[in-house]
Amino acid sequence: MTQITVGIVGYGNLGRGVEKAIRQNPDFTLAAVFTRREPQGVTASVPVLHISEAEKYKGTIDVMILCGGSATDLPEQGPYFAKMFSTVDSYDTHALIPDYFAKVDAVATENGHVSVISTGWDPGLFSLNRMLAEAILPEGKEYTFWGRGVSQGHSDAIRRVEGVKNGVQYTIPVEDAVAKVRAGENPQLTTRDKHLRDCYVVAEEGADLARIEQEIVQMPNYFSDYDTTVNFITEEELKDKHSTMPHGGTVLRSGRTGENSTQIIEFGLKLDSNPEFTASVLVAYARAAYKLAKQNQAGAKTVFDIPFGLLSPKSAEQLRKELL
Amino acid sequence: MTQITVGIVGYGNLGRGVEKAIRQNPDFTLAAVFTRREPQGVTASVPVLHISEAEKYKGTIDVMILCGGSATDLPEQGPYFAKMFSTVDSYDTHALIPDYFAKVDAVATENGHVSVISTGWDPGLFSLNRMLAEAILPEGKEYTFWGRGVSQGHSDAIRRVEGVKNGVQYTIPVEDAVAKVRAGENPQLTTRDKHLRDCYVVAEEGADLARIEQEIVQMPNYFSDYDTTVNFITEEELKDKHSTMPHGGTVLRSGRTGENSTQIIEFGLKLDSNPEFTASVLVAYARAAYKLAKQNQAGAKTVFDIPFGLLSPKSAEQLRKELL
Repeated sequence: MTQITVGIVGYGNLGRGVEKAIRQNPDFTLAAVFTRREPQGVTASVPVLHISEAEKYKGTIDVMILCGGSATDLPEQGPYFAKMFSTVDSYDTHALIPDYFAKVDAVATENGHVSVISTGWDPGLFSLNRMLAEAILPEGKEYTFWGRGVSQGHSDAIRRVEGVKNGVQYTIPVEDAVAKVRAGENPQLTTRDKHLRDCYVVAEEGADLARIEQEIVQMPNYFSDYDTTVNFITEEELKDKHSTMPHGGTVLRSGRTGENSTQIIEFGLKLDSNPEFTASVLVAYARAAYKLAKQNQAGAKTVFDIPFGLLSPKSAEQLRKELL
Repeated sequence: MTQITVGIVGYGNLGRGVEKAIRQNPDFTLAAVFTRREPQGVTASVPVLHISEAEKYKGTIDVMILCGGSATDLPEQGPYFAKMFSTVDSYDTHALIPDYFAKVDAVATENGHVSVISTGWDPGLFSLNRMLAEAILPEGKEYTFWGRGVSQGHSDAIRRVEGVKNGVQYTIPVEDAVAKVRAGENPQLTTRDKHLRDCYVVAEEGADLARIEQEIVQMPNYFSDYDTTVNFITEEELKDKHSTMPHGGTVLRSGRTGENSTQIIEFGLKLDSNPEFTASVLVAYARAAYKLAKQNQAGAKTVFDIPFGLLSPKSAEQLRKELL
């Protein structure tokens, strides 16, 4: 079996998820973890090194799996690592993807590496399914529902409210809306019709709970357009019941063909661990990046550019025989 | 917009579905329909010609969309047309796909054409999703449920029973089994646990209904391993209520990552018209065949070999901007 040697850049939830995913894929070898922090403080199953030492691994590491955030890490690390290695990342600032693509593409092309950007599940698998469904059913309507799952951005927003010690926010799809789409009714849905927001909040002692609830529920951009529920709980209960990171969602396209046939395509995820799943997608695309680089391809690639067969450790013959 | 000129070979339900699908895709032009029958008897929106006249269209038609059956038509027509044109087909005899691939590949490669074989939804989109889910979640279990939908093979089997004038069979997934898989229970399911078979039968006058029912229910390979219901109805009711061809199904993978996180990937179709949907998939892959041929690729390809982006009329830039 071909061995693909990879490194992990960034060792938060996603990076740790990649380390676990690699254990499930015997064609991968993890060489090292690279961190911006002081490496002495970090323990992993392989050597942990400062990010500045990565260049010593040029020619040894086939693909660098970039696990940093989209706000500040990846805009810098994407082009930096594409100079030295083939890379995979989960850059997810939708509006800035064309710009990020151009920057990474220039460096990767010049240096003969393959950089798969913006993979994971959204962007990533959800994007693929939206595109596929639109190509097959050009006359139709697309719906995306997210959840039930923890939204990091909304949880952060709660924690910024005065008097809030800790909090977690769940995005929940409105079941009735999903059912209408599945039934082919093609409903017009407002923001409020599609998702609920459910908040579990630990307040500081003596805080004004009514005020906190009002501030959350009325917060523009984050909550004011939704039906939001605020539940006050103890720090202990938060830790016991709300410390995992489930997520998921559904992409549906309801289209028409012929005279009046309704055709529905649905793709859904139900994830106990959002970072572990995203990590598993990154590892499969790292395999594709490796194979594309072996074919002497270079430049930035997205999920739209990559044949599915390259994601699998199986050969094309095996795939045709076993999975077609 | 690039114009892709196509022909349809075989003008049954699938061929007519392709004709309708082309109307929804303004980058396609349908040049002609080719049939093995006497063309005078066939009316379409374009010239209908005998299959032997196809070679006159060499250089004019970019992609031939082969709509014949897998039993006898495609094993002959696949290699025959790959000599003259790029092609797309829905060859679905799973066990013989490697052999069919090899034959079409040899001819297509020699003649510089691209032949996409075995597309549609199963094989096709379902295969893609099984492969994707297995690559992302290597430790897991895959389930496929078909229906609710009309199975042509089982309907034919009913019609061969003595005393049966007409009949339609629906394959129905067992909801409780689907629910268990969705809940991450990883059940062990027998054939009987997964699907029901529901038959609507028109008997000849004076036929022994009890005997017909027994013969159907006990028929090996087709019905004996299932819970089967036989409903006797009139020819009129059959025509009124059972003359459309709905189908669909669900591919699920229930996997584990990390210590013990259950991760579920689901892909489902709910189709009012099975042939119209398969036709829509063929047209999208005809677009990919055209683009691959323009890139000077040649040979047989399957859904595993083709980047999703090629299925869309949109450019790579547009896809990144609008759909990633």
